[in-house]
Amino acid sequence: MEKTDKLIVTPQDFKLPESLELDCGKKLDNVVLRYETIGKLNADRSNAILICHALSGDAHVAGFHSVDDKKPGWWDEFVGSKKPIDTDKYFVICSNVIGSCAGSTGPRSINEATGKMYNMDFPVITIRDMVRAQKYLIDELGIDKLLAVVGGSMGGMQAMEWAINYPDRLLSCLPIATTSQLSPQSIAFDWVGREAIKYDPNYNEGNYSSDLPPSNGLSTARMLAHITYLSDESMLKKFGRSLQEKDDYSFNFNRDFAVESYLEHQGQRFVERFDANSYCYITRAMDYFDLAARHGNDLTNAFEYCKNVKFLVVSFSSDWLFPTSQSIEITRALIKNEVEVSFCEIESSYGHDAFLLEIDALGEMVSSFLDNVMQKGEA
Amino acid sequence: MEKTDKLIVTPQDFKLPESLELDCGKKLDNVVLRYETIGKLNADRSNAILICHALSGDAHVAGFHSVDDKKPGWWDEFVGSKKPIDTDKYFVICSNVIGSCAGSTGPRSINEATGKMYNMDFPVITIRDMVRAQKYLIDELGIDKLLAVVGGSMGGMQAMEWAINYPDRLLSCLPIATTSQLSPQSIAFDWVGREAIKYDPNYNEGNYSSDLPPSNGLSTARMLAHITYLSDESMLKKFGRSLQEKDDYSFNFNRDFAVESYLEHQGQRFVERFDANSYCYITRAMDYFDLAARHGNDLTNAFEYCKNVKFLVVSFSSDWLFPTSQSIEITRALIKNEVEVSFCEIESSYGHDAFLLEIDALGEMVSSFLDNVMQKGEA
Repeated sequence: MEKTDKLIVTPQDFKLPESLELDCGKKLDNVVLRYETIGKLNADRSNAILICHALSGDAHVAGFHSVDDKKPGWWDEFVGSKKPIDTDKYFVICSNVIGSCAGSTGPRSINEATGKMYNMDFPVITIRDMVRAQKYLIDELGIDKLLAVVGGSMGGMQAMEWAINYPDRLLSCLPIATTSQLSPQSIAFDWVGREAIKYDPNYNEGNYSSDLPPSNGLSTARMLAHITYLSDESMLKKFGRSLQEKDDYSFNFNRDFAVESYLEHQGQRFVERFDANSYCYITRAMDYFDLAARHGNDLTNAFEYCKNVKFLVVSFSSDWLFPTSQSIEITRALIKNEVEVSFCEIESSYGHDAFLLEIDALGEMVSSFLDNVMQKGEA
Repeated sequence: MEKTDKLIVTPQDFKLPESLELDCGKKLDNVVLRYETIGKLNADRSNAILICHALSGDAHVAGFHSVDDKKPGWWDEFVGSKKPIDTDKYFVICSNVIGSCAGSTGPRSINEATGKMYNMDFPVITIRDMVRAQKYLIDELGIDKLLAVVGGSMGGMQAMEWAINYPDRLLSCLPIATTSQLSPQSIAFDWVGREAIKYDPNYNEGNYSSDLPPSNGLSTARMLAHITYLSDESMLKKFGRSLQEKDDYSFNFNRDFAVESYLEHQGQRFVERFDANSYCYITRAMDYFDLAARHGNDLTNAFEYCKNVKFLVVSFSSDWLFPTSQSIEITRALIKNEVEVSFCEIESSYGHDAFLLEIDALGEMVSSFLDNVMQKGEA
């Protein structure tokens, strides 16, 4: 038997010691967080990095669950030994957000009060609620100060909530390909996706059978969202108008173009691993995300207490879901608060997905930023 | 009784004198075109302008169907007495495209061979097929040479097909907010919209009852498409993140944001006037639209025989469905053929819908272009 170089990680579950208070005013009991860690926490507990995942992500950020496991974590190229977030140096934590369907408490979890799934009885959560739950985990791990909180897309929203709500608990914050508030265009795309789910005859107002989930609706929602993760340019490069199988149009309504086939495949793969109610709850949390609104509609006020947190803000030139202008708004608000911030727009044709694909350009920036923060330690 | 200044127009039906040969290789019998005309054809029949409508448009371009009619035609601000396309000077013709559901032969028409609706037996048509049918109408009206063929969006595609296929039958061509080929991103949006229709339990593979059409699917498709007709900027201006009724989030999944309410309204209004099968057929025709592909993948070749047609190409700065770069491609190809072409990008925040809204800026340009063509007559 050959020796394997595979990084094997084991998911762990952590139960919150008390009820989780939510932005909606309700409390959520018996909250469990699924999380994974990679690397070793050093003696003074100063090398911990929390990675926050995006909409459809999970705690499995890198490595494999077993020797035979073929599918690595979602940011495996970015996180690991000698990789941009180098787990030889850093202790990496990634936890699945509440509301999700990959181990943490979500709408398809059993409500211990009723013995049934929550489904639509699950409270509507916010990005801040996700972060509130994570803080219990960081407390449990005995980490007073995270070296960094890093996240792309919805992960970046969580990273900023960390800096705003617990500024004493992190040295640095890396919001990547993200925004301080969802635009009406993004809210609109989310709405249409959820309508597709709601209209699926299997949906049954969220009380669907696990054997017969609203897969068509969820697949439609995913295909739509997927278009917003790519760019016009990347779709032109990747597919152009090339046809799937034939030399000429089929003159019917089956998939004809390579891009149609690709989307169909993406939709089908997604329903195998994701839950429709979770999709609704997490997109709703994103819709509600608006850092300025909570602070007198002034984003500058939102970062008022972040003076001791170092920021690296990164956007990608072809990202039209969370365009560079939105990262610049964040950067400006930080500068007005005299926060130490570096901002960079990475030239890329990959659209929003670039944060998962531009490993080299992003990696160089993130690794040197982290080195710097680690060396300087607390200000 | 008060005297009305309302322009009253009467829809007319024209039956093609022979079978319509289609790009798919099939023939379509008993094709009827619904059309409307405004103004008077002059003695030498030199003042006729054909207006081609977009995806969800119809023959009713301007005016009212009766004195009591409250809803004017879709381009009423642009077409009429003393308006940019001045019907005191010009004889305007607008016909509903084949495949549509507003009077012309489409998938919900009765197939005389079977006595039943075509539904999915209707052949997949192309933009060129739509134009082929229109040419019979122009023949019937005794017009040897149209002064202009004008159209926005899919209407612009038809205008270009006129110039390419019947260059001797028009003096000028005005493709507005359009493209020479649908991009993979647009094909992708169309695909997702049709998937939503297909997945509607009422759809029944296109054989739905007229009493119970796939309204949820069609509404979802329309809401999605509607997002692509606006711009991020116009949505920010029009809705921002303002809430519909309350001061704070509802923490549920009903419409909360003004933009959600707007989209829902758009979806509901659309299903009252449009047919799901027509939506599928017309979007497919747009997917298949690719002027270069038919000409050795070189757009320049497409316009080879257009030397005597004058062009006015117009785009709008915030149109991300058919962005300015695509209009520039058309203009370049025309220039390479030494075609007389004017191109203008109009600064607008309205997105693709700008061709229906930027009446003043577009109007000034179109009216002076038409005056010029009319004065000069044939080259």
